Amino acid sequence: MSQSSKKGTIPARKGKGAFAAKGQIIRVINTHGQQVVDTWAFNAHDTSEFLSMEHSRVAMGKIIPEVGDSLVTNKRRPILTIVEDTTPGIHDTLLAACDRYRYELLGAKGYHDNCTDNLASAMKELGAKLPETPSPLNLFMNIPVLEKGRVDFRPPVSQPDQYIALRAEMDLFVVFSACPQDMVPINGIACIPTDAEFAIE
Amino acid sequence: MSQSSKKGTIPARKGKGAFAAKGQIIRVINTHGQQVVDTWAFNAHDTSEFLSMEHSRVAMGKIIPEVGDSLVTNKRRPILTIVEDTTPGIHDTLLAACDRYRYELLGAKGYHDNCTDNLASAMKELGAKLPETPSPLNLFMNIPVLEKGRVDFRPPVSQPDQYIALRAEMDLFVVFSACPQDMVPINGIACIPTDAEFAIE
Repeated sequence: MSQSSKKGTIPARKGKGAFAAKGQIIRVINTHGQQVVDTWAFNAHDTSEFLSMEHSRVAMGKIIPEVGDSLVTNKRRPILTIVEDTTPGIHDTLLAACDRYRYELLGAKGYHDNCTDNLASAMKELGAKLPETPSPLNLFMNIPVLEKGRVDFRPPVSQPDQYIALRAEMDLFVVFSACPQDMVPINGIACIPTDAEFAIE
Repeated sequence: MSQSSKKGTIPARKGKGAFAAKGQIIRVINTHGQQVVDTWAFNAHDTSEFLSMEHSRVAMGKIIPEVGDSLVTNKRRPILTIVEDTTPGIHDTLLAACDRYRYELLGAKGYHDNCTDNLASAMKELGAKLPETPSPLNLFMNIPVLEKGRVDFRPPVSQPDQYIALRAEMDLFVVFSACPQDMVPINGIACIPTDAEFAIE
Protein backbone atom coordinates (compact mmCIF):
# COMPACT_ATOMS: atom_id res chain seq x y z
CA MET A 1 0.00 0.00 0.00
CA SER A 2 1.65 3.18 -1.22
CA GLN A 3 1.76 6.82 -0.25
CA SER A 4 0.92 7.79 -3.84
CA SER A 5 -1.51 10.57 -4.57
CA LYS A 6 -4.90 9.73 -5.93
CA LYS A 7 -8.05 11.55 -6.78
CA GLY A 8 -11.41 10.53 -8.06
CA THR A 9 -15.12 10.96 -8.30
CA ILE A 10 -17.63 9.75 -5.75
CA PRO A 11 -20.45 9.01 -8.19
CA ALA A 12 -23.92 10.29 -7.34
CA ARG A 13 -25.80 7.68 -5.22
CA LYS A 14 -22.70 5.44 -4.98
CA GLY A 15 -19.71 4.69 -2.77
CA LYS A 16 -15.96 4.82 -3.31
CA GLY A 17 -13.10 3.60 -1.14
CA ALA A 18 -9.36 4.32 -1.10
CA PHE A 19 -6.22 3.73 0.94
CA ALA A 20 -4.54 6.66 2.69
CA ALA A 21 -1.16 6.35 4.37
CA LYS A 22 -0.50 7.92 7.77
CA GLY A 23 0.19 11.63 7.26
CA GLN A 24 -1.61 11.98 3.94
CA ILE A 25 -4.29 14.63 3.53
CA ILE A 26 -7.74 13.55 2.37
CA ARG A 27 -9.79 16.30 0.73
CA VAL A 28 -13.51 15.82 0.17
CA ILE A 29 -14.92 18.33 -2.27
CA ASN A 30 -18.59 19.22 -2.43
CA THR A 31 -18.46 19.76 -6.21
CA HIS A 32 -22.07 20.86 -6.58
CA GLY A 33 -22.42 22.25 -3.05
CA GLN A 34 -25.48 20.37 -1.77
CA GLN A 35 -24.30 16.78 -1.55
CA VAL A 36 -23.95 14.94 1.75
CA VAL A 37 -20.98 12.54 1.81
CA ASP A 38 -21.18 9.76 4.42
CA THR A 39 -17.60 8.96 5.41
CA TRP A 40 -16.00 6.02 7.24
CA ALA A 41 -12.39 5.13 8.08
CA PHE A 42 -10.85 1.81 9.13
CA ASN A 43 -7.37 0.96 10.40
CA ALA A 44 -5.81 -0.61 7.28
CA HIS A 45 -3.94 -3.19 9.36
CA ASP A 46 -6.96 -4.25 11.47
CA THR A 47 -10.35 -3.12 10.25
CA SER A 48 -11.98 -4.09 13.56
CA GLU A 49 -10.61 -0.70 14.65
CA PHE A 50 -12.51 2.13 12.97
CA LEU A 51 -13.63 5.74 13.16
CA SER A 52 -16.36 5.95 15.82
CA MET A 53 -18.76 8.87 16.22
CA GLU A 54 -19.74 7.93 19.80
CA HIS A 55 -16.11 7.74 20.90
CA SER A 56 -15.20 10.91 18.96
CA ARG A 57 -17.90 12.96 20.69
CA VAL A 58 -16.33 12.02 24.05
CA ALA A 59 -12.80 12.81 22.83
CA MET A 60 -13.75 16.15 21.25
CA GLY A 61 -16.28 17.24 23.88
CA LYS A 62 -18.50 18.35 21.02
CA ILE A 63 -20.88 16.95 18.43
CA ILE A 64 -19.43 18.63 15.30
CA PRO A 65 -15.69 18.47 14.56
CA GLU A 66 -13.87 21.71 13.74
CA VAL A 67 -10.39 22.50 12.37
CA GLY A 68 -7.87 21.14 14.87
CA ASP A 69 -10.12 18.41 16.23
CA SER A 70 -9.11 14.76 16.01
CA LEU A 71 -11.75 12.09 15.55
CA VAL A 72 -10.93 8.78 17.18
CA THR A 73 -11.52 5.07 16.74
CA ASN A 74 -13.44 2.60 18.88
CA LYS A 75 -10.08 2.14 20.65
CA ARG A 76 -10.01 5.93 21.28
CA ARG A 77 -6.92 6.52 19.11
CA PRO A 78 -6.82 9.50 16.72
CA ILE A 79 -7.59 8.42 13.15
CA LEU A 80 -8.56 11.64 11.33
CA THR A 81 -7.76 15.28 12.16
CA ILE A 82 -9.61 18.17 10.52
CA VAL A 83 -6.88 20.39 9.04
CA GLU A 84 -8.92 22.70 6.81
CA ASP A 85 -12.58 23.40 6.15
CA THR A 86 -13.67 25.95 3.55
CA THR A 87 -17.37 25.21 4.20
CA PRO A 88 -19.32 26.96 6.99
CA GLY A 89 -18.38 23.98 9.20
CA ILE A 90 -21.74 22.23 9.34
CA HIS A 91 -21.37 18.44 9.41
CA ASP A 92 -23.20 15.69 11.28
CA THR A 93 -22.13 12.95 13.69
CA LEU A 94 -25.58 12.03 15.05
CA LEU A 95 -27.46 10.09 12.41
CA ALA A 96 -27.13 6.56 11.05
CA ALA A 97 -26.30 5.91 7.41
CA CYS A 98 -29.39 5.40 5.27
CA ASP A 99 -30.23 1.78 4.53
CA ARG A 100 -32.91 -0.35 2.86
CA TYR A 101 -35.08 -0.10 5.96
CA ARG A 102 -35.01 3.72 5.86
CA TYR A 103 -36.26 3.80 2.27
CA GLU A 104 -38.85 1.08 2.86
CA LEU A 105 -40.28 3.18 5.73
CA LEU A 106 -40.28 6.25 3.47
CA GLY A 107 -42.34 4.29 0.93
CA ALA A 108 -39.75 3.50 -1.73
CA LYS A 109 -40.84 0.75 -4.14
CA GLY A 110 -38.18 -1.83 -4.95
CA TYR A 111 -34.45 -1.43 -4.31
CA HIS A 112 -33.14 2.02 -3.42
CA ASP A 113 -29.42 2.81 -3.38
CA ASN A 114 -28.29 3.45 0.18
CA CYS A 115 -25.12 4.44 2.04
CA THR A 116 -24.99 1.22 4.11
CA ASP A 117 -24.84 -0.97 0.99
CA ASN A 118 -22.41 1.50 -0.63
CA LEU A 119 -20.05 1.05 2.33
CA ALA A 120 -20.21 -2.75 1.98
CA SER A 121 -19.54 -2.60 -1.79
CA ALA A 122 -16.61 -0.21 -1.42
CA MET A 123 -14.96 -2.35 1.27
CA LYS A 124 -15.41 -5.44 -0.90
CA GLU A 125 -13.79 -3.62 -3.84
CA LEU A 126 -10.86 -2.73 -1.56
CA GLY A 127 -10.59 -6.38 -0.47
CA ALA A 128 -11.08 -5.27 3.14
CA LYS A 129 -13.18 -6.95 5.81
CA LEU A 130 -16.14 -4.90 7.03
CA PRO A 131 -16.59 -5.71 10.74
CA GLU A 132 -19.91 -3.88 11.17
CA THR A 133 -21.61 -0.70 9.93
CA PRO A 134 -20.22 2.10 12.10
CA SER A 135 -22.21 5.30 12.46
CA PRO A 136 -20.76 7.57 9.72
CA LEU A 137 -19.24 11.05 9.71
CA ASN A 138 -21.84 12.78 7.55
CA LEU A 139 -19.84 15.50 5.82
CA PHE A 140 -21.79 18.62 4.80
CA MET A 141 -24.98 17.27 6.43
CA ASN A 142 -27.03 19.89 8.26
CA ILE A 143 -28.72 18.45 11.36
CA PRO A 144 -29.15 21.23 13.93
CA VAL A 145 -29.97 20.35 17.53
CA LEU A 146 -32.84 22.65 18.53
CA GLU A 147 -34.75 23.28 21.77
CA LYS A 148 -35.50 20.24 23.94
CA GLY A 149 -33.03 18.13 21.96
CA ARG A 150 -35.14 18.12 18.82
CA VAL A 151 -33.13 17.60 15.62
CA ASP A 152 -34.07 18.95 12.21
CA PHE A 153 -33.14 17.66 8.74
CA ARG A 154 -32.03 20.59 6.56
CA PRO A 155 -30.25 21.11 3.21
CA PRO A 156 -26.47 21.62 3.32
CA VAL A 157 -25.15 25.17 3.69
CA SER A 158 -21.94 24.49 1.74
CA GLN A 159 -21.26 26.04 -1.68
CA PRO A 160 -19.96 24.40 -4.89
CA ASP A 161 -16.28 23.38 -4.68
CA GLN A 162 -16.00 23.99 -0.96
CA TYR A 163 -14.13 21.20 0.78
CA ILE A 164 -12.94 19.74 4.05
CA ALA A 165 -9.44 18.30 4.50
CA LEU A 166 -8.58 15.55 6.99
CA ARG A 167 -5.17 14.21 7.91
CA ALA A 168 -4.85 10.42 8.19
CA GLU A 169 -3.42 9.67 11.65
CA MET A 170 -2.79 6.02 10.77
CA ASP A 171 -2.72 3.93 7.58
CA LEU A 172 -6.38 3.62 6.77
CA PHE A 173 -9.10 2.73 4.33
CA VAL A 174 -11.47 5.62 3.81
CA VAL A 175 -14.90 5.08 2.29
CA PHE A 176 -17.19 7.79 0.94
CA SER A 177 -20.82 7.52 -0.11
CA ALA A 178 -22.53 10.29 -2.08
CA CYS A 179 -25.80 9.87 -0.19
CA PRO A 180 -28.64 8.73 -2.49
CA GLN A 181 -31.33 10.28 -0.29
CA ASP A 182 -33.91 11.74 -2.72
CA MET A 183 -37.04 11.38 -0.55
CA VAL A 184 -36.05 13.88 2.19
CA PRO A 185 -34.33 17.21 1.24
CA ILE A 186 -31.05 16.37 2.94
CA ASN A 187 -29.09 16.80 -0.32
CA GLY A 188 -30.75 20.12 -1.18
CA ILE A 189 -34.40 21.02 -1.65
CA ALA A 190 -34.38 19.66 -5.22
CA CYS A 191 -33.71 16.17 -3.79
CA ILE A 192 -31.28 15.34 -6.61
CA PRO A 193 -28.14 13.48 -5.45
CA THR A 194 -24.97 14.58 -7.27
CA ASP A 195 -21.32 13.55 -7.61
CA ALA A 196 -18.65 14.71 -5.21
CA GLU A 197 -14.86 14.39 -5.47
CA PHE A 198 -11.95 13.40 -3.30
CA ALA A 199 -8.18 13.78 -3.41
CA ILE A 200 -5.54 12.04 -1.28
CA GLU A 201 -2.08 13.68 -1.30
CA MET B 1 -38.08 -18.00 27.66
CA SER B 2 -40.99 -17.01 29.86
CA GLN B 3 -43.09 -13.94 30.55
CA SER B 4 -42.45 -14.31 34.27
CA SER B 5 -41.71 -11.28 36.40
CA LYS B 6 -38.25 -10.74 37.70
CA LYS B 7 -36.42 -8.10 39.61
CA GLY B 8 -32.89 -7.66 40.74
CA THR B 9 -29.94 -5.52 41.61
CA ILE B 10 -27.51 -4.05 39.13
CA PRO B 11 -24.43 -4.17 41.36
CA ALA B 12 -22.25 -1.07 41.56
CA ARG B 13 -19.59 -1.14 38.79
CA LYS B 14 -21.08 -4.30 37.25
CA GLY B 15 -23.49 -5.48 34.57
CA LYS B 16 -26.67 -7.54 34.64
CA GLY B 17 -28.74 -9.02 31.81
CA ALA B 18 -32.27 -10.39 31.62
CA PHE B 19 -34.88 -11.61 29.15
CA ALA B 20 -38.03 -9.54 28.62
CA ALA B 21 -40.95 -10.82 26.55
CA LYS B 22 -42.76 -8.57 24.07
CA GLY B 23 -45.19 -6.38 26.02
CA GLN B 24 -43.43 -6.59 29.37
CA ILE B 25 -42.48 -3.40 31.20
CA ILE B 26 -38.86 -2.91 32.21
CA ARG B 27 -38.33 -0.50 35.10
CA VAL B 28 -34.86 0.84 35.86
CA ILE B 29 -34.67 2.40 39.30
CA ASN B 30 -32.00 4.90 40.28
CA THR B 31 -31.90 3.64 43.87
CA HIS B 32 -29.38 6.17 45.13
CA GLY B 33 -30.23 8.88 42.59
CA GLN B 34 -26.85 9.60 41.03
CA GLN B 35 -26.02 6.42 39.17
CA VAL B 36 -25.76 6.26 35.38
CA VAL B 37 -27.05 2.96 33.94
CA ASP B 38 -25.78 2.09 30.46
CA THR B 39 -28.51 0.06 28.78
CA TRP B 40 -28.59 -2.17 25.69
CA ALA B 41 -31.28 -4.35 24.11
CA PHE B 42 -30.99 -7.18 21.57
CA ASN B 43 -33.66 -9.06 19.63
CA ALA B 44 -33.77 -12.35 21.58
CA HIS B 45 -34.29 -14.36 18.38
CA ASP B 46 -31.45 -12.71 16.42
CA THR B 47 -29.01 -10.63 18.43
CA SER B 48 -27.54 -9.11 15.24
CA GLU B 49 -30.60 -6.83 15.53
CA PHE B 50 -30.23 -4.46 18.47
CA LEU B 51 -31.18 -1.11 19.97
CA SER B 52 -29.32 1.58 18.02
CA MET B 53 -28.83 5.16 19.18
CA GLU B 54 -27.98 6.50 15.70
CA HIS B 55 -31.09 4.93 14.18
CA SER B 56 -33.26 5.99 17.15
CA ARG B 57 -32.24 9.66 16.79
CA VAL B 58 -33.50 9.55 13.18
CA ALA B 59 -36.76 7.80 14.17
CA MET B 60 -37.48 10.11 17.11
CA GLY B 61 -36.23 13.34 15.53
CA LYS B 62 -34.57 14.12 18.85
CA ILE B 63 -31.51 13.20 20.88
CA ILE B 64 -33.22 12.38 24.22
CA PRO B 65 -36.21 10.01 24.34
CA GLU B 66 -39.32 11.14 26.22
CA VAL B 67 -42.48 9.34 27.34
CA GLY B 68 -44.25 8.08 24.21
CA ASP B 69 -41.08 7.78 22.11
CA SER B 70 -40.01 4.46 20.65
CA LEU B 71 -36.36 3.65 20.27
CA VAL B 72 -35.54 1.45 17.29
CA THR B 73 -33.07 -1.19 16.20
CA ASN B 74 -30.43 -1.13 13.49
CA LYS B 75 -33.25 -2.46 11.27
CA ARG B 76 -35.36 0.58 12.29
CA ARG B 77 -38.01 -1.49 14.10
CA PRO B 78 -39.34 -0.34 17.50
CA ILE B 79 -37.68 -2.26 20.35
CA LEU B 80 -38.30 -0.11 23.47
CA THR B 81 -40.96 2.51 24.16
CA ILE B 82 -40.69 4.94 27.08
CA VAL B 83 -43.96 4.55 29.00
CA GLU B 84 -43.14 6.38 32.24
CA ASP B 85 -40.32 8.52 33.58
CA THR B 86 -40.40 9.88 37.13
CA THR B 87 -36.96 11.53 36.70
CA PRO B 88 -36.56 15.02 35.19
CA GLY B 89 -36.11 13.25 31.81
CA ILE B 90 -32.37 13.73 31.39
CA HIS B 91 -30.73 10.76 29.65
CA ASP B 92 -27.98 10.45 27.03
CA THR B 93 -27.79 8.87 23.59
CA LEU B 94 -24.56 10.55 22.41
CA LEU B 95 -21.64 8.96 24.21
CA ALA B 96 -19.91 5.60 23.90
CA ALA B 97 -19.81 3.14 26.77
CA CYS B 98 -16.67 3.45 28.87
CA ASP B 99 -13.99 0.87 28.11
CA ARG B 100 -10.42 -0.04 29.06
CA TYR B 101 -9.10 2.60 26.64
CA ARG B 102 -11.13 5.35 28.34
CA TYR B 103 -9.67 4.54 31.75
CA GLU B 104 -6.13 4.12 30.39
CA LEU B 105 -6.38 7.62 28.89
CA LEU B 106 -7.68 8.96 32.23
CA GLY B 107 -4.60 7.49 33.93
CA ALA B 108 -6.05 4.42 35.65
CA LYS B 109 -3.43 1.94 36.82
CA GLY B 110 -4.23 -1.70 36.11
CA TYR B 111 -7.66 -3.06 35.21
CA HIS B 112 -10.65 -0.79 35.72
CA ASP B 113 -14.22 -2.11 35.54
CA ASN B 114 -15.96 -0.72 32.47
CA CYS B 115 -19.38 -0.84 30.83
CA THR B 116 -18.07 -2.42 27.60
CA ASP B 117 -16.69 -5.45 29.45
CA ASN B 118 -19.82 -5.54 31.64
CA LEU B 119 -21.95 -5.87 28.49
CA ALA B 120 -19.82 -8.75 27.23
CA SER B 121 -19.98 -10.58 30.59
CA ALA B 122 -23.75 -10.16 30.90
CA MET B 123 -24.37 -11.46 27.38
CA LYS B 124 -22.13 -14.45 28.06
CA GLU B 125 -24.07 -15.17 31.26
CA LEU B 126 -27.30 -15.06 29.23
CA GLY B 127 -25.80 -17.46 26.69
CA ALA B 128 -26.40 -14.87 23.98
CA LYS B 129 -24.08 -13.91 21.13
CA LEU B 130 -22.78 -10.32 21.28
CA PRO B 131 -22.44 -9.14 17.66
CA GLU B 132 -20.63 -5.85 18.45
CA THR B 133 -20.68 -3.13 21.14
CA PRO B 134 -23.57 -0.86 20.20
CA SER B 135 -23.60 2.71 21.49
CA PRO B 136 -25.67 2.49 24.72
CA LEU B 137 -28.74 4.27 26.01
CA ASN B 138 -27.18 6.00 29.00
CA LEU B 139 -30.05 6.26 31.45
CA PHE B 140 -29.89 9.16 33.94
CA MET B 141 -26.69 10.48 32.30
CA ASN B 142 -26.54 14.27 32.02
CA ILE B 143 -24.76 15.38 28.84
CA PRO B 144 -26.16 18.76 27.77
CA VAL B 145 -25.46 20.06 24.26
CA LEU B 146 -24.35 23.68 24.70
CA GLU B 147 -23.47 26.50 22.30
CA LYS B 148 -21.52 25.55 19.17
CA GLY B 149 -22.28 21.86 19.73
CA ARG B 150 -20.09 21.62 22.82
CA VAL B 151 -21.12 18.84 25.21
CA ASP B 152 -20.59 18.88 28.96
CA PHE B 153 -20.30 15.98 31.42
CA ARG B 154 -22.47 16.68 34.48
CA PRO B 155 -23.82 14.71 37.47
CA PRO B 156 -27.31 13.18 37.12
CA VAL B 157 -30.29 15.31 38.13
CA SER B 158 -32.42 12.31 39.18
CA GLN B 159 -33.36 11.68 42.82
CA PRO B 160 -33.21 8.42 44.84
CA ASP B 161 -35.82 5.84 43.77
CA GLN B 162 -36.84 7.73 40.65
CA TYR B 163 -37.22 5.42 37.67
CA ILE B 164 -37.86 5.10 33.97
CA ALA B 165 -40.15 2.40 32.52
CA LEU B 166 -39.76 0.97 29.02
CA ARG B 167 -42.06 -1.42 27.18
CA ALA B 168 -40.40 -4.27 25.30
CA GLU B 169 -41.66 -4.11 21.70
CA MET B 170 -40.21 -7.52 20.87
CA ASP B 171 -38.78 -10.45 22.84
CA LEU B 172 -35.41 -9.12 23.90
CA PHE B 173 -32.35 -9.42 26.04
CA VAL B 174 -31.78 -6.26 28.03
CA VAL B 175 -28.40 -5.53 29.59
CA PHE B 176 -27.70 -2.91 32.25
CA SER B 177 -24.35 -1.67 33.53
CA ALA B 178 -24.09 0.44 36.68
CA CYS B 179 -21.34 2.63 35.23
CA PRO B 180 -18.06 2.26 37.18
CA GLN B 181 -16.86 5.74 36.19
CA ASP B 182 -15.13 7.14 39.28
CA MET B 183 -12.57 9.40 37.59
CA VAL B 184 -15.04 11.90 36.08
CA PRO B 185 -18.11 13.09 38.11
CA ILE B 186 -20.67 11.49 35.81
CA ASN B 187 -22.13 9.42 38.67
CA GLY B 188 -22.33 12.39 41.04
CA ILE B 189 -19.65 14.74 42.31
CA ALA B 190 -18.52 12.22 44.95
CA CYS B 191 -17.45 9.88 42.11
CA ILE B 192 -18.75 6.82 43.98
CA PRO B 193 -20.57 4.30 41.77
CA THR B 194 -23.60 2.70 43.45
CA ASP B 195 -26.10 -0.09 42.86
CA ALA B 196 -29.27 0.41 40.86
CA GLU B 197 -32.28 -1.91 40.49
CA PHE B 198 -34.52 -3.24 37.77
CA ALA B 199 -37.87 -4.95 37.56
CA ILE B 200 -39.47 -6.71 34.58
CA GLU B 201 -43.25 -7.30 34.86
